[in-house]
Formats: sequence, C-alpha cells, structure tokens
Amino acid sequence: MADAAFLKHLAQLAAAETLPRFRAAAAVTDKGVGRFDPVTEADREAERAIRAAIEAAHPDHGIVGEEFGATNADAEHVWVIDPVDGTRAFISGVPVWGTLIGLTHRGRAVHGVMAQPFTGEIYFTDGDVARYEGPGGARSLATRATASLDEAILFTTTPALFTGAAKAVYDRLEDAVRLVRYGTDCYGYMMVASGQADLVCEVGLQSYDVVALIPIIEKAGGVITDWTGGRAENGGSILASANARLHDAALAILNG
Amino acid sequence: MADAAFLKHLAQLAAAETLPRFRAAAAVTDKGVGRFDPVTEADREAERAIRAAIEAAHPDHGIVGEEFGATNADAEHVWVIDPVDGTRAFISGVPVWGTLIGLTHRGRAVHGVMAQPFTGEIYFTDGDVARYEGPGGARSLATRATASLDEAILFTTTPALFTGAAKAVYDRLEDAVRLVRYGTDCYGYMMVASGQADLVCEVGLQSYDVVALIPIIEKAGGVITDWTGGRAENGGSILASANARLHDAALAILNG
Repeated sequence: MADAAFLKHLAQLAAAETLPRFRAAAAVTDKGVGRFDPVTEADREAERAIRAAIEAAHPDHGIVGEEFGATNADAEHVWVIDPVDGTRAFISGVPVWGTLIGLTHRGRAVHGVMAQPFTGEIYFTDGDVARYEGPGGARSLATRATASLDEAILFTTTPALFTGAAKAVYDRLEDAVRLVRYGTDCYGYMMVASGQADLVCEVGLQSYDVVALIPIIEKAGGVITDWTGGRAENGGSILASANARLHDAALAILNG
Repeated sequence: MADAAFLKHLAQLAAAETLPRFRAAAAVTDKGVGRFDPVTEADREAERAIRAAIEAAHPDHGIVGEEFGATNADAEHVWVIDPVDGTRAFISGVPVWGTLIGLTHRGRAVHGVMAQPFTGEIYFTDGDVARYEGPGGARSLATRATASLDEAILFTTTPALFTGAAKAVYDRLEDAVRLVRYGTDCYGYMMVASGQADLVCEVGLQSYDVVALIPIIEKAGGVITDWTGGRAENGGSILASANARLHDAALAILNG
C-alpha cells in the first residue's frame, strides 16, 4: 500500500502542482498574524492532488496534511503530508524545499518520500531499504560512520529557531561539531540519509514536518528521535543522526 | 572574447571536474591552520581546466584564480576564477555552490558566469544582457522592483560572518527586512539577479568570490557595491540589491 511506485506517483502528482509555480510570481498569503508563514498555491494544490490519490487508492486510510488538516486520523494507517516543506526556501527561489509524504501504521512512521522536483531528486523507502533517484543515477541510501562530533557536519534551518535554554544547548552542539550549515529544511535530513552530512537539530517541528523523513533515515541506517530519545513522529524538538554513536553524543549535549 | 558561448564552454569544462566529485567521497584537505577551509580535488582540477582553456584562447589575458593565484594580473583583460564557490555547501551535499568565472577590463568586471552543474543551471552575461538556462527553460534575467526593505528577502551565507561593528549594523538590516535566508554563497546573488530575492549582504569576500557576479547582477538591473557604495571588484564587505532604491536604503543602515 506504500510501495515505491505509489510513493513516486504521489510525488509526481505534487510536482505537477509545485514545479510550475516555483520561481513564478505565485501569490503568497500569510497564515498568521504578525508571523511570516507563507503558503503558496503550490502548497494547497499539491496537497489536494495527493489527498485525492490516497483517498481513491486507500479509502480506509487516514490523512493528516499541513494545509487541510486531519481526516480519519484514528485509522490504522494514516498518511502525513507536507506538500511544500520549506516554504521560505520556495519563495526565495532556492531548491532545498521538498514534498513530504509519510505513512504511519498504528502511529509509527513506516514509509515515506521526500521529493525535490526542480533538482529532479527523490528520496524514498522501498520495502526495507531507502533509495535515491536523481542526478547521478539511482542508488540505495546509507548514512555514514562518522565516529565523533568533532568530525560531524550539522544542519539546521536557522539558528533563530532556538531560544532560551534550547539556544544554550544548541550553541554547545554547534561548538562541538566540525561544520554547521543553515537553510536546508527537509533537505538537510536527506543529506544525513545519503551519507553527505551527520546531524540535523531542530525545534518546533510539526508532525507533518518529520513523519515522512523518519523511515527514510532509519532505513538508511540513521537515527531520528526527539531530544529525549523518544520517537519523533509527533515532532517538537528533533535530532537526526548518521549513526547511534553520534546520536548519543549529540543527545548528551542537548540534555546538558 | 567573452561571448556567451565561450563562458558556457568554460563552465562545461569545470562541470566535468566538479560534478563527478560532488557527493562522492572526495578527499578534503584543509588549507589553513585552525580554520576550516576545505579544498577539494574538484576545486583544483576545475581551475586547471578553466585556466588551460583561457590560456589557449587568450594568451595575452591575465588570470587570477582561487587555487593557483595570479598570472599576468596587470593585463588589460584579466579572468577571475573561483572554481567551487561555496566549498562548505559542496562538501555537505547541498547544490547551492557554483563555478564562478568573471572577466575584467582595466579592473572593471564586464562579463561573467555562475554555473551550478548538479541542478543544471547557468547564469551568464550575453552582450549587454544577463541570461539563465536550466530547469524551466532559457530566459533573460531581470531583478525585481521591491520598493522597501520591509518587503525584501535578504540572503547571507551565515550570520557568523559578522562580528563587532559589522554585526551590529548587519543585525539592524536583518531586523528591517521581511525574510532572511542563510547558506547560499554565490547562489543567493543569482536569486537577486533572477528576481527571486532582493538583497545579499556579506563581509570578508575575496575578489574571486564576487567578480563573476558583478556583471550578471548589473546587466540584470541590479546594483552591487562595497558597503561604502564603491565598486565591488576588490571584494571585502559587499551588498547586492535588486534595484538602486533598495540598495540606498540598505547602505544607509549599514553605514549607521
């Protein structure tokens, strides 16, 4: 029900709505009051297309989407969708946003896809493995064996995410690693899954920001949890790591 | 001598060296002591290829490159090369690095190209205009008419660039704009040239970080200077803007 062909089909439906609007003069509306949180037509139309395809194929499944909320969220299988993760990257023209579609079974993320249609990249689960297709060809995804924080590359979307006590421990994590990169949203997680980077540390995530990424990272050999080491499906404060040793070292810093 | 065909040819020669090494387990060496400044084989081999092609076509021209320094730098025409601008993006797997090749005439940047071979994008001058080729097709580049800072999208590679007095004024610029994005190196400048964003503000740039970008931004309708409003060819503290009005408003903040 979440075979790779279906995941890729959903990603293609989304791309048909997002890609023509990327770098076009799309209308950007503001979700909140006093907070910059753009939502584009791309976001809404892509989610509509994804939801329709899931509902047709799996009418008994639930769906939770960033744009249109929850339908049958107590079902055994629930799809969790962020049609454009990284809307700020999207409206700035930088192709590090992605379409996220994940599937949970009894609350646990079991399959997922992250697609970046401008670069032509797709990262997805295929049975028990995670795979990549895009420039450079098709291959299985595997995280890397980086042994210590001082060799690690860390991603976060922006250091401005962190305030108060979270900022204090996050800053210590930055100090402990070799290199920090900003501005990546979901793309950074896929760099961990594909062995290009080692850590992603963020706070304030929603379930739809992370569910699709969990099985891709886990099936690639990585670890993703909340900052207490618990399951990441509910979002919040999240740490993704290339391997368990690095994850434990980073969690130790984040927990003071 | 710097027609679009030659610029694109040089970019292709560079891509043949950079792209196969991007996301590969390339050896990364450390230029400095105590400072993280990776140089990959891609950097060196791409500059070798570019220099050889320029020397063959224009033996009377000078060349200044990031990797191999200056040759005949007092010539009337001098090429200025950064084979991989954004080496930290490169080693992290994020395709916002670029190959920069610029041409100066009596010290003034007159032609240039920025190429991102993974995404298949190229931004370049063609006579009196600037052009784009890549996903979405080919088109002329034009900056946008954003009228005030509070509507502007600002890029910088990382806020950690700024210290002391520069940090104080940079922070004021961040506060004045609508949205700030990090992590883009040369890619951010091309988002300004292509009307996706409005400002790039950076410090500590070398000549080879900026010469290729100047004519692309200028021929697209934008403005790029140092923070005093002088020519940008020598690098240092640089501001690029979509238009003169925005540039003046941002310079006013940066000059406190």
